[in-house]
Amino acid sequence: MTITGQNLIAGEWSGNTQGGFKAFNAQTHRAIDIEFADATELEVNTAIARANDAFTSYSQLSATKRAAFLRAIGAEILALGDELVETACGETGLPAMRIQGERGRTIGQLGLFADLLESGEYQGVIEQANNDRQPLPKPDTRLGYLPLGVVGVFAASNFPLAFSTAGGDTASALAAGCPVVMKAHAAHPATAELVARAILKAIESCDLDRGVFSLIQGKNYAIATQIVTHPAVKAVGFTGSERVGMILQAQIHQRAEPIPFYGELGSINPQFIMPEKLARDGAEIAQGLVASLMMGQGQFCTSPGVWVVVGSEDSADYQTFISSASEALAQQAAGVMLTPAMCAGYNKAVEERKTLNCVSLLATGQMGNEQECSATLFVTDLATFATTPLLQEEVFGFSALVVRCADLTEMMQLVSLLKGNLTASIHGLENDLSASKTLSLSLAHKVGRLIYNQMPTGVEVCTSMNHGGPFPASTNIRTTSVGSEAITRFRRPICYQNMPTELLPSLLKS
Amino acid sequence: MTITGQNLIAGEWSGNTQGGFKAFNAQTHRAIDIEFADATELEVNTAIARANDAFTSYSQLSATKRAAFLRAIGAEILALGDELVETACGETGLPAMRIQGERGRTIGQLGLFADLLESGEYQGVIEQANNDRQPLPKPDTRLGYLPLGVVGVFAASNFPLAFSTAGGDTASALAAGCPVVMKAHAAHPATAELVARAILKAIESCDLDRGVFSLIQGKNYAIATQIVTHPAVKAVGFTGSERVGMILQAQIHQRAEPIPFYGELGSINPQFIMPEKLARDGAEIAQGLVASLMMGQGQFCTSPGVWVVVGSEDSADYQTFISSASEALAQQAAGVMLTPAMCAGYNKAVEERKTLNCVSLLATGQMGNEQECSATLFVTDLATFATTPLLQEEVFGFSALVVRCADLTEMMQLVSLLKGNLTASIHGLENDLSASKTLSLSLAHKVGRLIYNQMPTGVEVCTSMNHGGPFPASTNIRTTSVGSEAITRFRRPICYQNMPTELLPSLLKS
Repeated sequence: MTITGQNLIAGEWSGNTQGGFKAFNAQTHRAIDIEFADATELEVNTAIARANDAFTSYSQLSATKRAAFLRAIGAEILALGDELVETACGETGLPAMRIQGERGRTIGQLGLFADLLESGEYQGVIEQANNDRQPLPKPDTRLGYLPLGVVGVFAASNFPLAFSTAGGDTASALAAGCPVVMKAHAAHPATAELVARAILKAIESCDLDRGVFSLIQGKNYAIATQIVTHPAVKAVGFTGSERVGMILQAQIHQRAEPIPFYGELGSINPQFIMPEKLARDGAEIAQGLVASLMMGQGQFCTSPGVWVVVGSEDSADYQTFISSASEALAQQAAGVMLTPAMCAGYNKAVEERKTLNCVSLLATGQMGNEQECSATLFVTDLATFATTPLLQEEVFGFSALVVRCADLTEMMQLVSLLKGNLTASIHGLENDLSASKTLSLSLAHKVGRLIYNQMPTGVEVCTSMNHGGPFPASTNIRTTSVGSEAITRFRRPICYQNMPTELLPSLLKS
Repeated sequence: MTITGQNLIAGEWSGNTQGGFKAFNAQTHRAIDIEFADATELEVNTAIARANDAFTSYSQLSATKRAAFLRAIGAEILALGDELVETACGETGLPAMRIQGERGRTIGQLGLFADLLESGEYQGVIEQANNDRQPLPKPDTRLGYLPLGVVGVFAASNFPLAFSTAGGDTASALAAGCPVVMKAHAAHPATAELVARAILKAIESCDLDRGVFSLIQGKNYAIATQIVTHPAVKAVGFTGSERVGMILQAQIHQRAEPIPFYGELGSINPQFIMPEKLARDGAEIAQGLVASLMMGQGQFCTSPGVWVVVGSEDSADYQTFISSASEALAQQAAGVMLTPAMCAGYNKAVEERKTLNCVSLLATGQMGNEQECSATLFVTDLATFATTPLLQEEVFGFSALVVRCADLTEMMQLVSLLKGNLTASIHGLENDLSASKTLSLSLAHKVGRLIYNQMPTGVEVCTSMNHGGPFPASTNIRTTSVGSEAITRFRRPICYQNMPTELLPSLLKS
């Protein structure tokens, strides 16, 4: 297919691409020769207005038909075939196998929401009237849910399918009955266009209002402002950096009507290696952490950025762990980041870290060509971690920091210093159980997902998942962006009192 | 009991009351001769710090013990006996029977949350491991919930028990496992002190950390700012005016860490009288609306402020409704408002309404003494309602506005103009069903509770209740402040992955 470089505005391809922005080939750092049109103010307004119009019919569409729509999107994404994989690989530098896996996950997410819709979209609560109750009769009250309205979604760079055009935010908003205005990520605009075409085909085959989905291309920040401050937009989903997320949050705060902002921002995903584990499996756990860190060049939201170990600097257990981790990391191949800007950002963060007092570079991965970055491993102690705020910031990429604690008390102090995180893991053996219990009770309040003896990378898409957590992991601690509970972000409760059956939603009729 | 006029800071009565603020007797508008101490910055900080300390033990308290605590609070409130009723009546001007009923509701709310805790605090989701799954094994994942931390609660003026010191926000926060720092309402500080004593007795009899509850007295706005911007405060509940709510919201937006703000602000609770209903039961429905409006002198959150009818100005049906409503209202006795300031505010709003073009005063209730206010009924047409933003503002008190629509099309236009509301009612007969269905589908998106053929006043405290809705009814459309679902405001999801049984919360063990 020929990429048009245009915006998809309620079913119409629109925009002047001449002189527009270009994506970069992540391997070569050269611009890909397709021009993309920054959406105009009029195009964005039209997309939102058409989405708002479509809300009337789409919010009333039966759950079964919404499920069929989600499955149709999945089928159309698969039908894009190798072109989608090749395009995404070129724009992101991620290997084909990873993109294929991510495609499966993306289709799986759509299917999970379709399953949910087909098995009963929500669990309503029906409490019938009791006219005999004293001192006052009890009216018939029934609790159901309504979709919020138009949802603005901002694609992430690091998962060009699963957290992008038809990713988790889009899938859960559409599942809830909300039209989506999607701001594509400028790092993979062609991938976004292909997926938008798949969604448009599904809209057509399901005979839906074309306003249900629009794709907004652009590098102009004013577009984002326009989306999040538009009165018809009733919720916003975002996955990206804390810096950009906080700009959007501040703009949303200026609105007359408050709306929920679901921003997934950053996380250092601390890993706690307990004393017995360190003593018995120090080398093994070090290698496991390095392998987890290397996934997607460390560009996973759940990449293990901080490794906490207990021990004196000269203890054999500690030294074994450090030397094993350093050796493993030193062998890792260099790799390209998602964009040239992220490559530069990673290198800058690493250089900055090298200059910090009492932070030592333990190892660097293999050098590559000038477009590639190398993994890095640093070490520090608790006192330095406690007094160096920069060490709590996420380095986006495959850099990890070992924090050595003198004892379990120091480890607990480190927990109290932590900001919010998506995940944390405790790595322990039987003899670590008592200390792990104490640790877990505190650590639970700092994370969205608490893991035992497994690596944080890899997020299961299921009903019991929580991908969120205290700020800055998420701007809304009470919600998840992955798993079927993500649908609850885009709907809200409503009580129907004393309503005749004909006026009740089908799930609340009996 | 002698009222101390002091703050309750983690179990200690504290503060210099000399020269402090006084409450007013609502009947006489004379100051009641008890001085109350504005909490100092140190006292507020101590309360929050002690609450934060108490969070560790209180968040780990078993659900059964939290339930016993809530029931103990209820029992201690009842044990305050007539003194509580007399004190609340004096400070609010509400009659004894109303306060007794509200006390029952308050204790009932505490009991509802206790029932919930005893019957299984939440429905966890357990998805076990599947090591055979391809291409990757499925880890064991379990979804549970954790309390957020210290909750700041701001008492409402209009329900001195049910939305105040031990009201719905406090009950749901304590039920969730969150310590509460309560800002008492300056209109009923002695009532607040009595209830705080009951809570302290329950804390002592249940042997809990005294930091679990503090009562902050004061008229100084800086106290509110200090509470909502304190880093240890993790959620805020508020019921009150849109003006004050928006000030708190703006202060919360300045925080480094975003936290949920549950503000219930204002609502005009539109009532739709359908054509057949108007024709057959015009007089009856008019009288019913007047009776609902008069409840608590119209100082209910759900007071019916706007009555929408369809008909030409000279139709007999419309005239019957108008004359019946006017006659009924003219007979209503005058009454005191909750405070002298609210009395003045009501009178000012009524005078302002009288000056509006194309808005006519239909009737005024009986005149009383100079401390009393009189009910009022106005009428206008859709065109005026559409172009006069002031008519969408809540008048706090027993003033209603009839909006005449020429036909059902105009009625639907009115719906599209509405801001968010706590409730709306549709009053209809069999022949109105088709039009009511069309109306309900639009109207549902403007309200938290949609009612058929019942008055909006009276909020059932049950599992299927939703007391909230689109802004400005609530600052958080996804939550309710009444009913057992209110507990969800103060907890958040957490996923436990691959955790040993010993490290799982009891509800997720099997």
